[in-house]
Amino acid sequence: MAPPDVIVREVGLRDGLQLVKSFVPTETKLAWMRAVAAAGVPEIETTNFVPAKVIAQFADSADVARGALAIEGPLMCALAPNRKGAENGLATGLKKMNFVLSVSEGHNLANVRKSTDASFAEFENVVALKKERPEWKDVVIQGCLATSFGCTIEGRVDPDRVLRFVDRYLELGADEITLADTVGYAAPSEIANLFHHTVQLAAGKPVYAHFHDTRGLGLANVYAALEAGVRGFDASTGGLGGCPFAPGASGNIVMEDLVFLLEKEGLNTGVDLEKYRLAREIAETTLPNENFYGTILRAGLPKGFVPASKAA
Amino acid sequence: MAPPDVIVREVGLRDGLQLVKSFVPTETKLAWMRAVAAAGVPEIETTNFVPAKVIAQFADSADVARGALAIEGPLMCALAPNRKGAENGLATGLKKMNFVLSVSEGHNLANVRKSTDASFAEFENVVALKKERPEWKDVVIQGCLATSFGCTIEGRVDPDRVLRFVDRYLELGADEITLADTVGYAAPSEIANLFHHTVQLAAGKPVYAHFHDTRGLGLANVYAALEAGVRGFDASTGGLGGCPFAPGASGNIVMEDLVFLLEKEGLNTGVDLEKYRLAREIAETTLPNENFYGTILRAGLPKGFVPASKAA
Repeated sequence: MAPPDVIVREVGLRDGLQLVKSFVPTETKLAWMRAVAAAGVPEIETTNFVPAKVIAQFADSADVARGALAIEGPLMCALAPNRKGAENGLATGLKKMNFVLSVSEGHNLANVRKSTDASFAEFENVVALKKERPEWKDVVIQGCLATSFGCTIEGRVDPDRVLRFVDRYLELGADEITLADTVGYAAPSEIANLFHHTVQLAAGKPVYAHFHDTRGLGLANVYAALEAGVRGFDASTGGLGGCPFAPGASGNIVMEDLVFLLEKEGLNTGVDLEKYRLAREIAETTLPNENFYGTILRAGLPKGFVPASKAA
Repeated sequence: MAPPDVIVREVGLRDGLQLVKSFVPTETKLAWMRAVAAAGVPEIETTNFVPAKVIAQFADSADVARGALAIEGPLMCALAPNRKGAENGLATGLKKMNFVLSVSEGHNLANVRKSTDASFAEFENVVALKKERPEWKDVVIQGCLATSFGCTIEGRVDPDRVLRFVDRYLELGADEITLADTVGYAAPSEIANLFHHTVQLAAGKPVYAHFHDTRGLGLANVYAALEAGVRGFDASTGGLGGCPFAPGASGNIVMEDLVFLLEKEGLNTGVDLEKYRLAREIAETTLPNENFYGTILRAGLPKGFVPASKAA
C-alpha cells in the first residue's frame, strides 16, 4: 500500500474524551481505537498522561497506551502536560509524545497554572528524556501551540508571537510542530498565512494542524492549511470534543468529513470511510449524551466517486 | 454606508422552502424577509414563479414578490423556470429574474422535463422579454447552471461542458452567471478551477456561487471560490433546504456562518449577525419540523472581534 499523502490523526480518545465526565472503560476505549485502526487511520492520540486527580477520564492512561501499542497499524502517541507525564508515557513503550502550551499567557496560566516561560522550561525537561534511556533516543517529541489563532481570555493572539514560539520549540528540540485553533476563532486567510511561515521555519519537520469547528470554519481552514503545505491534521470521530467556552457548539473537526475533503482533493489518506463507520457506532453507543456531527456518512459518497486511497 | 465587498443572497425563501410540504402563509414569508432585510442582507431570492400545481409552496409567488418589493433595502429577485414564469415575475415589478438549467442532461430532463438545448431556447425567450416593455429594458437576467460539479443521476459532470454552457448563457444575453453545486459533491480545488475560468469568461459580469453543504464542504468551497474571484454567494437561514437525494443531510450553506467567514476574512457583507438572529427565530418557529444548522449564533463572535461591516 502506498503511504498516505496526508496524515489524519484521531484525537477522539484524547481531546474528544477530555470533557466527558462519565468514565469510559479501558476496554471500550481500545475497541474504539481498534475500529479506527482497522479503517486505516495512520496515527492515533491515545490518551493524556495527566494526573487522574486533574482529569479522571485519563486515570487509565498507561493501560490505554499499552493496549494501543498491541494494535497493529497506526503510530500511537499521547499527550503529556509535563516531564512526569512524558516519562510515564514513554515507559509504556509509546514512540511519540505530544507536549502542549498556550501562546496566550492568560490561557496557559488557566490551563496548566504556569507562565509560558515555565512551560518552555518544562518542555526542555521533556526533550531531555530522550537521553535518559537508549530506547528513548529516537522518540518523536511534538510541540503544540494552543490558542495560536486567538483565545477566549485574551482575544486576539499576535501571529508574530506564535512564530517566535515555533522558533523556540524548534530550538529546544521539537521534532514536529502543531498549531492549534483551540477555540475555533480562525478564518482561512490567517490559517494560510501563519502555517505558511510555520512550514518554512520547520524546514522539513512535520507540521500538524489542530482545528475546532466551534464556528463552522474547520474544513475551510483545513483547505487553507493544505494550500500552505500542511500534511498532518487532527480530527475526532463525529467531531467529539465539546468546547467548554461554547456550549452546544461542535468540538474538533469531524474525521469522516475531513477524510472526504482530502480524498476528494485527490490526496490518499489511507482511510476507508465505510470501515470507519464502526468507530463512529462504538463512540455513539458509548456516549449517548454527547453530540456527534458530520455529514458524509449520512449523505454517502458522490455517485461514481473513487477515493484517492482506493485508486492508490 | 460602504457598499458590501461581497453580495450574500438569501435563498431560504426559495431554495429553503422548495421541499417544505406545509404551506407557509404569505405574511409569514414576508415577516421572515423583513427580518433578513433589516439585518442588512443585500439581495433576496424571494420566490419561484413556477406553476402552483408543480410546487404548491409557491402558489403565492406574485403576492410574495409584490410584498418583497415594498421592503426597503435588498435587491429583490426570483427564480423562473421558463418564459411564462419570468413574465409573471417581471409583471410584479421585480428587476431581476434567475433562470436555471442543469448541466447534466439527465438531471435537466428529471427537473424540468426538457433537454438542455430546449432549456437554452427557453432562456432566449426569457431574455427576449427585455424588449417587450420599456420598463423591462434594464432588468437583470441571471443564468444558473445546476449540477455544475456533479449529479446524483449522471455522477461526474465534465468541467469543459460547464464552461461551454457558461459561454452559451453569455452569448444568449445572460447578465450574470451562477454555478451551483446542487447536490453537495464539490471539493475546493475543483471549485477554484471552474470558477477561475468562469470569472474570466464572464469578463466583469457578476458570478455567483450556490453551494449545498450536503457533505460538509460548503464553507471550504466558499473560500476556494473567493480566491477565484467570486463575490456573490447564495445561502439560507440556518441552512434550510434539505436535499431530496440525501435525507437528513443539510441543505444550503448557512447564511450566518457564511457571513462570519466573510467578515473574518475582512470582507464587508453589510450584515449584522445579531439582527439576523430574528430571521432565524422566525424561520425556526414557522418550521418546527425542519432541521436548522449553523454554529456562529450559538458560539458567538470571537472575543474582541470587530466585523468588517462594523469597521467600514
